[in-house]
Amino acid sequence: MEATAEEVDRAVRAAHGARAALADRTVRAAFLRTAADLLDEARAHVIEAADAETALGPVRLTGELARTTAQLRSFAEVVEEGSFLDIRIDLPDPDATPPRSDMRRWKIPLGVVAVYAASNFPLAFSVPGGDTASALAAGCPVVVKAHPDHPATSELCAALLRRAAAKEGLPEDVVVLVHGFDAGVELVRHPLVAAAGFTGSVRGGRALFDAAAARAVPIPFHGELGSLNPVVITPAAAGERAEEIGAGLAGSMTLGAGQFCTKPGFVLAPRGEDGDRFLAALTAGVSETEPAVMLDHRMRDAFVTGVAERGALDGVRTPVTPGAGGEHTVSAGVLAVDADRLTGAAATDHHLLLEECFGPVTVVARYSSREEVTAVLGLLPGNLTATLHIAERDEDGDAAPLLAELTPLAGRVLVNGWPTGVAVAAAQHHGGPYPATTSTSTSVGATAIERWLRPVTYQSTPDHLLPPELRDGNPLGVPRR
Amino acid sequence: MEATAEEVDRAVRAAHGARAALADRTVRAAFLRTAADLLDEARAHVIEAADAETALGPVRLTGELARTTAQLRSFAEVVEEGSFLDIRIDLPDPDATPPRSDMRRWKIPLGVVAVYAASNFPLAFSVPGGDTASALAAGCPVVVKAHPDHPATSELCAALLRRAAAKEGLPEDVVVLVHGFDAGVELVRHPLVAAAGFTGSVRGGRALFDAAAARAVPIPFHGELGSLNPVVITPAAAGERAEEIGAGLAGSMTLGAGQFCTKPGFVLAPRGEDGDRFLAALTAGVSETEPAVMLDHRMRDAFVTGVAERGALDGVRTPVTPGAGGEHTVSAGVLAVDADRLTGAAATDHHLLLEECFGPVTVVARYSSREEVTAVLGLLPGNLTATLHIAERDEDGDAAPLLAELTPLAGRVLVNGWPTGVAVAAAQHHGGPYPATTSTSTSVGATAIERWLRPVTYQSTPDHLLPPELRDGNPLGVPRR
Repeated sequence: MEATAEEVDRAVRAAHGARAALADRTVRAAFLRTAADLLDEARAHVIEAADAETALGPVRLTGELARTTAQLRSFAEVVEEGSFLDIRIDLPDPDATPPRSDMRRWKIPLGVVAVYAASNFPLAFSVPGGDTASALAAGCPVVVKAHPDHPATSELCAALLRRAAAKEGLPEDVVVLVHGFDAGVELVRHPLVAAAGFTGSVRGGRALFDAAAARAVPIPFHGELGSLNPVVITPAAAGERAEEIGAGLAGSMTLGAGQFCTKPGFVLAPRGEDGDRFLAALTAGVSETEPAVMLDHRMRDAFVTGVAERGALDGVRTPVTPGAGGEHTVSAGVLAVDADRLTGAAATDHHLLLEECFGPVTVVARYSSREEVTAVLGLLPGNLTATLHIAERDEDGDAAPLLAELTPLAGRVLVNGWPTGVAVAAAQHHGGPYPATTSTSTSVGATAIERWLRPVTYQSTPDHLLPPELRDGNPLGVPRR
Repeated sequence: MEATAEEVDRAVRAAHGARAALADRTVRAAFLRTAADLLDEARAHVIEAADAETALGPVRLTGELARTTAQLRSFAEVVEEGSFLDIRIDLPDPDATPPRSDMRRWKIPLGVVAVYAASNFPLAFSVPGGDTASALAAGCPVVVKAHPDHPATSELCAALLRRAAAKEGLPEDVVVLVHGFDAGVELVRHPLVAAAGFTGSVRGGRALFDAAAARAVPIPFHGELGSLNPVVITPAAAGERAEEIGAGLAGSMTLGAGQFCTKPGFVLAPRGEDGDRFLAALTAGVSETEPAVMLDHRMRDAFVTGVAERGALDGVRTPVTPGAGGEHTVSAGVLAVDADRLTGAAATDHHLLLEECFGPVTVVARYSSREEVTAVLGLLPGNLTATLHIAERDEDGDAAPLLAELTPLAGRVLVNGWPTGVAVAAAQHHGGPYPATTSTSTSVGATAIERWLRPVTYQSTPDHLLPPELRDGNPLGVPRR
């Protein structure tokens, strides 16, 4: 089943050959909607296949499929509306320095996009997911490298996307699927691949990023690799609603067996009685969580090893011990440590607590001063999200400076909420400083389309030779500046 | 004068320490305008310094300074107007899948930007140039690595920028200057450098790009490396105005001793009588050009060697022989070859003709069929520009398909014009597929500011904690979606 180098080459060439057919925005929008319709019609099959391969369960998968088809339809709207073309028009100005000719700028698709599917979302971040939807919306054919955890689901979804293409008169090869680790490496090195999207681990993503950068012609590599998603709870917030925050965190960190990229994995909570109440509520909530099956055995093993290593560090307490549940399951847990363990000169071992541990565990660092919060935040890598819990009335004035300290650390900053649940929306930003993402882009939301485009300016070009979007009088009525 | 690693570290830390002072958009705009004013006031000194170091002459340098100060002022307008913040606001929607909270997205500065100055523009692409102006406009302090061809000009300009900062109440260290090859390498590796802008050679740019990608935390590297800037002349265009096109090309390719990054360096012209007339006009124009001093001895030597190597290839003719002029000068020239020399299986030696040769030379490839044009275009690397000359009345219908073939090759496509002279304008795109640039961005024009920003979304954040640009009621009146 794993694709050979020759098969990857054929896949990329087939996709490349299909690119001209995606030039028409109306056809692209219809294709994305038809793809959503076919996925909805095949709902029972898709969810059955995905559940058999991932153990995520029909409830979660039904929601994920709804998210996936809504995402395809929202990109159909983005394509039709046209502001993603980022059109700017300058009329001639012979008096400028240097003199200015007629210039009309828009954005064109980059070419074949390689999409690396994620383990933890067999639909929304895999074959029919956000990278595929945004690339097709941009006019780029995709070659998807399936995740080995759900090959049959991938095949089923690819077949539905290809059928949707055919229904709209497009070549089926606007979407091509390949399997295999080596195939993934071949793909990012292929001369006709123009860009790549990736969701997965730091190790795997970095290896592909490095391969993309080392090419004779380097290509953009938009990878979402890993995120700790820190949470800061102020003393006033803990004083006001310790139990509510503890229960909320227990729900967010155990959701989907802690396998969301936005799982809050590190929490700064005050020492003292209010912080104790918070920790007790968190502990109670996590203790009630049923053991869960993780996505695959490799991840389960990594979780069991990861929490054991962290729990064995000096001074780390385990209010609820995470680790192996039954033979195939894991049980959720909480690790607690004093924040000053992280900040000392001899604290390098403890920096393991500042690395993402995929699965249902969070680390609570108890701080005793505002300065300690700043010191710990200064140690954190880049994140997808950062969350601040403050009192409903910001009486101590801590909120504004804390928000200013959290903003450099993440692509999405939340106040009094939880980061799991990433809305598909125009204002969404699902990305952040490395290693959260390898670029400044988002993989969720309308602006995700920007990753697969580049600007081109037409200068002094006769009107009839311009794309209709750039012609005098704006015959297609697209937004222009 | 060359900065040691410790001096680079001090420079970067000083710039990093100044970053918070750039947060206010009004102050940034005032600073950019004051910088332009101080450069204008010191015009005589600046031009004298630059002419002494580059031999570009006061006429060209006066124009370049006007361009530079106009560019600073245009970025002041960009900062004030605010649409570069790319604000998107989603109000809450509890019925969405998943439910949507209040989300407000804008863009924030990345941090310290390393700017690598160009040899060929001591002002407009150096210390006070486009990379510096756009980075400061974005709110990023800059550390400029001076080009060794004009250290005194660089010092003078840096001092003026720093004085402008002080006049506006900003720390002088929002602009810091360093010298030296090793310092440049240290700079791109420094952990507090968040992005880099570069204008220069493929070899130097690629080495720095590789260093940026190999960091523990990779950073965006926006490099403008090299460009052949192909020109295609249709048979109908040659038939209609062979002399005009030949004379125009002679002017464009010899402008500034052929040292512009948009110099047209490769021309596809038809065989036969009309093409002969074009070549005769080009030859006449180039023959009349005075020998010129190049920017430095290294470049002069590279030009003399480069044209000799190209001229020695089988079948290459030299209607005007380029090469050494006097002891310090070069003379412009034209190389001509039959296009089929480039396309055969044994043509790899001749692919040297498809590489940029910095200086006043262009290669004219004579084609005998439309298919030959397509075959040669298929061999070209990425370019900043591509130019098409067609008849004023497009009688043969060749123009549209040729334009479609040129668009994938370049970031700016011109019809019946010349690519030298890059207007500072909203619709400008000065970038293109690798090696023209290492990213999809532009280094000239309003959108150049996008390189130094990343999006952040605030979710469920109380109004008084948001930046004013994102608050309810839009108190600052910035463009939002």
